[in-house]
Amino acid sequence: MPGVRPLRFEDPPSRGAGGALLVLDQRALPDEERWLRCERVEEVADAIRSMAVRGAPAIGLAAAYGLALAAAAEVPFEEAASLLIATRPTAANLGWAIERARAADGDLLGLARALEAEQLEADRRLSALGAERMGRRERVLTHCNAGPLATGGYGTAGGVIRAAWEQGRLDQVWVDETRPLLQGSRLTAWELDRLGIPYRVVADSAAASLMGRGLVDRVVVGADRIAANGDVANKVGTYPLAVMAERHDVPFHVAAPLSTIDPGTPTGADIPIEERDPSELVTDRPALNPAFDVTPAELVGAIFTEAGVLEPPYDNSIARALGR
Amino acid sequence: MPGVRPLRFEDPPSRGAGGALLVLDQRALPDEERWLRCERVEEVADAIRSMAVRGAPAIGLAAAYGLALAAAAEVPFEEAASLLIATRPTAANLGWAIERARAADGDLLGLARALEAEQLEADRRLSALGAERMGRRERVLTHCNAGPLATGGYGTAGGVIRAAWEQGRLDQVWVDETRPLLQGSRLTAWELDRLGIPYRVVADSAAASLMGRGLVDRVVVGADRIAANGDVANKVGTYPLAVMAERHDVPFHVAAPLSTIDPGTPTGADIPIEERDPSELVTDRPALNPAFDVTPAELVGAIFTEAGVLEPPYDNSIARALGR
Repeated sequence: MPGVRPLRFEDPPSRGAGGALLVLDQRALPDEERWLRCERVEEVADAIRSMAVRGAPAIGLAAAYGLALAAAAEVPFEEAASLLIATRPTAANLGWAIERARAADGDLLGLARALEAEQLEADRRLSALGAERMGRRERVLTHCNAGPLATGGYGTAGGVIRAAWEQGRLDQVWVDETRPLLQGSRLTAWELDRLGIPYRVVADSAAASLMGRGLVDRVVVGADRIAANGDVANKVGTYPLAVMAERHDVPFHVAAPLSTIDPGTPTGADIPIEERDPSELVTDRPALNPAFDVTPAELVGAIFTEAGVLEPPYDNSIARALGR
Repeated sequence: MPGVRPLRFEDPPSRGAGGALLVLDQRALPDEERWLRCERVEEVADAIRSMAVRGAPAIGLAAAYGLALAAAAEVPFEEAASLLIATRPTAANLGWAIERARAADGDLLGLARALEAEQLEADRRLSALGAERMGRRERVLTHCNAGPLATGGYGTAGGVIRAAWEQGRLDQVWVDETRPLLQGSRLTAWELDRLGIPYRVVADSAAASLMGRGLVDRVVVGADRIAANGDVANKVGTYPLAVMAERHDVPFHVAAPLSTIDPGTPTGADIPIEERDPSELVTDRPALNPAFDVTPAELVGAIFTEAGVLEPPYDNSIARALGR
């Protein structure tokens, strides 16, 4: 998408210096395009923790660049890795990127750039596969943001939507506003505006009645972690969407790169669910603010990945896709 | 509840003058207790339309006072009634109050006061009946606001919660924030604070995962219109709560006075669903903002009314309660 990149790496002025990771501060969008300059791994960790950069694949890439900055500053790898892994507990891609870096020999900046290129390619493939499943002029509902801002590439659910639009398979998008941080009405709407894709924002709790009125042909969402059995952790509010979709015979699909699948997490019950500060929701009142929920695999019609469309039973299809 | 009254009628300085309806502006709560002074029926209609006063029973009472002001100003009854009925299409109590006024002979201010007293009495009875159904130290989830601010009395769902608290049947309340206008985190939380009842605010879309984690013992909500078959129109987001409650074997109960039941509306499909301005949800972006949804009777475990607890099959129990 022209101009939508959540991360840019600025090369060092001379060989041996560290350079900087520029992070588009998604907390300020759509009102302002403000860039944070992270020269140290601690600053990258802060950007992830504060959700200046968010979306499981994008924070995986940010972590990879953070490890490269740490290496250039001679911060020990495990120290930098511990700092980064502690920022957000739910997203699988964070641990995945760190493992890729741990296994690499030396050039961590080269690795981060390679992971970014891989992500773009994975997004394009899974988006094409997802779009192929759609009919003509569908009305697709999505939750949170799973476009280029969330992946650093083409987008997952957002990529499916974009590819479908280009192929005439999309009529319009229903955009859940996605409380409390409004990633739908702030970020997804901003991306769709740039692409000229028609959409309407709705309250998260209105999605059910849209389905009841026959106004939704498909639900497509991204994911933060997919367990080995196909249970899907994603932004809180995804689980009730999947239940409502089943009730109204609306296909419910997940789009995610393989790096979001964690074979070390057997089921959704094993996924740590991050609780964020209640002040994101309400100030000066008691509140509980879980950031994610888990959709059981039985409600997931298909998972679009770069290695193909995974279908139930997911324990088998996931193991095959991961080559295990 | 001490100090929580959404409406106060100020007597005229001399016999024959009109007086004024003072409306607690619920749009400004909890930050500010601002009162609107309505001397003319047009001002009452504006207060209802703009949701300075909201909640089906409370807007029924406001309309009754509005008709009294119209009569004192010699505005023809049907003109005033047309103005008031057009303000909010979904709430049954608006039409009900107008019909009560049409059938009354003369003293419309006396009627409005009688309706207000009836509401308080109905709220107390249905709240006692609802609380009786509860066990010990339950965790009750509610949506929107159905306390005294919404009824002008003791509250419906809010009244059940209050009565349960006084009887030791309540542990704490989960308060859905209730987008877009935040009647939960602004109004219900404010009422519960005053009563010293423990609560936590949650995003509307987090309620499903709370149920999945076994943290909700019961859902109790109010209603804006109940059809003759027991289908319930209430604040958008109620329907998915009922579906999730069924999935997790959590009782789902509705608390409402008989004035909210409209025997002239056969089913939920016949209930007009108000669409409000998209700017309530998001500025400068396309949006759809339905204010209500319909929960099918099959998902409603019981309806607490002042005439008793109504149970399925609702066509029978409702007809009996209405004496038809």
